Amino acid sequence: MRDVASDIALGVDVGGTKSLAVLMTRNGDVLDELTTPTPHDPSRAAGEAMAEVLAGQARELTARHGVDAAEVPIGIGVPGLVRRDGSLAYAPNLQSASGADLPSALFALLNNHSVHVENDGNCAALAEYAWGAGQGVDDFVMVTLGTGIGGGLIANGELVRGRSGFAGEIGHMVVEARGAPCHCGGYGCWERYASGSGLGRLASLAAAQGRLPTLSVRAGGPELVRAEHVTAAAAEGLSEALALLDEVAWWLSLGISNLVAIMDAGHFVIGGGLSVAADFMVPSATTYLAELVEGYPSRPPITLVPSAFGVRAGAIGAAAVAFERAG
Amino acid sequence: MRDVASDIALGVDVGGTKSLAVLMTRNGDVLDELTTPTPHDPSRAAGEAMAEVLAGQARELTARHGVDAAEVPIGIGVPGLVRRDGSLAYAPNLQSASGADLPSALFALLNNHSVHVENDGNCAALAEYAWGAGQGVDDFVMVTLGTGIGGGLIANGELVRGRSGFAGEIGHMVVEARGAPCHCGGYGCWERYASGSGLGRLASLAAAQGRLPTLSVRAGGPELVRAEHVTAAAAEGLSEALALLDEVAWWLSLGISNLVAIMDAGHFVIGGGLSVAADFMVPSATTYLAELVEGYPSRPPITLVPSAFGVRAGAIGAAAVAFERAG
Repeated sequence: MRDVASDIALGVDVGGTKSLAVLMTRNGDVLDELTTPTPHDPSRAAGEAMAEVLAGQARELTARHGVDAAEVPIGIGVPGLVRRDGSLAYAPNLQSASGADLPSALFALLNNHSVHVENDGNCAALAEYAWGAGQGVDDFVMVTLGTGIGGGLIANGELVRGRSGFAGEIGHMVVEARGAPCHCGGYGCWERYASGSGLGRLASLAAAQGRLPTLSVRAGGPELVRAEHVTAAAAEGLSEALALLDEVAWWLSLGISNLVAIMDAGHFVIGGGLSVAADFMVPSATTYLAELVEGYPSRPPITLVPSAFGVRAGAIGAAAVAFERAG
Repeated sequence: MRDVASDIALGVDVGGTKSLAVLMTRNGDVLDELTTPTPHDPSRAAGEAMAEVLAGQARELTARHGVDAAEVPIGIGVPGLVRRDGSLAYAPNLQSASGADLPSALFALLNNHSVHVENDGNCAALAEYAWGAGQGVDDFVMVTLGTGIGGGLIANGELVRGRSGFAGEIGHMVVEARGAPCHCGGYGCWERYASGSGLGRLASLAAAQGRLPTLSVRAGGPELVRAEHVTAAAAEGLSEALALLDEVAWWLSLGISNLVAIMDAGHFVIGGGLSVAADFMVPSATTYLAELVEGYPSRPPITLVPSAFGVRAGAIGAAAVAFERAG
């Protein structure tokens, strides 16, 4: 067996629909990976079904590489509010795991003492800081554009965890008071304007207003226009789709400007499942910063760059958490 | 002479209209203070007139207490973007000092090697952390409600300075996209809704809409209603004034909720010149957090408390900066 404590960790990004596990070396190489559907079984105790899936992933990946599932440090990234002790306080997209104690459950299943849970956006930030697009940058923000917007803050070279460990919920910063309703119960959250679901919402609005005529025909009616139609048509260069992505880019830039004002971050790493659309939006969003950031001419340039790891950033960062906590 | 390097510092808060200097002991006692009008002389080199005023304050306060103005560490808090090296990059309310190098100017005037410049909101945060309402709290935000909104962030027990030293510009976080114009050039900044000028703006709007009938009569016309009328009438219990302050409290709570989402701060120290109005607003603002903060029931209570130092927080914090940097 290898000396796993020093050179290999398992990172799992638990998403609303699927869970991606990666086996990583300490210098940032992905040795192997495995994707499994995320279980949602409200009839069982919180996180019980999920712990079994995670244990199965750990057993399979470690067995393939001749390491012991009890010995490899495990990091788990989850979407929601994770307390500093690793318990899951609030996870609207993962109801069956709210309140789960995954470290205890995995100790019971794997006899593994080294299981560490962290918010998925924080994991992604740590991945970019350790091995990716934030290496050597002591003040940056990870922005993950998926169905919502997740994030993680690095300030003074450290992850900002906040009082309870809940920092980085940047998608729920309100950018339009009394604006579009959000599943969190609030109104006008940034993720209702600049995420995948935000793009879908703005596409529906634009189609209803007659601003997406070609896409409305293609989709079979304005009410059937979805984010995917916009992204695909933008890739073809369709101007109405590009104009809508430009609108979303403005909203992306608005939220980033707020983070510049608050944190004075000068670097933003953009990741998440919306990456194709993000490729179109990042140049516009960067341009909009000049009008949106207070004192823009007095500041050094603000850079927006794509994630080095795309949709794997959360899982890779979960492994970074495992290395960090295991020491 | 006293051993000034170890036990006394001078802190000056340079405001748009006046500059408050305090002579402090290391354990947080104010020995003496002096207020001087802030000079604005565009015909002179940046910060030259201001450096003379500061030198005069330093000479007078130190002479009164038998210490040497060349030996006492000096901290200066200014409203604007202060670089980590202490130079002033952008100060819209202090144009005649933009770009000033106050440490060099004060060295020339006082032969004092230990002059340190910091943003005024950051100073206030450090004052509360060192000796006031943030003592022992490792994740909190200072919110100074004056003409605008300033602030300072403490995370993991340290001031968040950001890449260039500009962090804490929380008043320029946009809470209403394309909202009320701000002197910073942006639109919808938080300080247009929840500061002294925000109260004045909302009072004018409410008066024009006929929602402040009594105050409109008192002021001599709806167009003459000012923030001071609202604050004074609220102190008498006039319901239309209390209702307006409640509206401002909602906006205050909205920006605080954003800072909770982003930083997971659990404690907010409210200071600045709007403190009388703040006394009315803080209870309402605390109540509104329950509807505005994502995952509110999953979080420990969020506390809003008044500054321990009121309008002296910036000057006292500037002295804290002097102690910190002088070692």
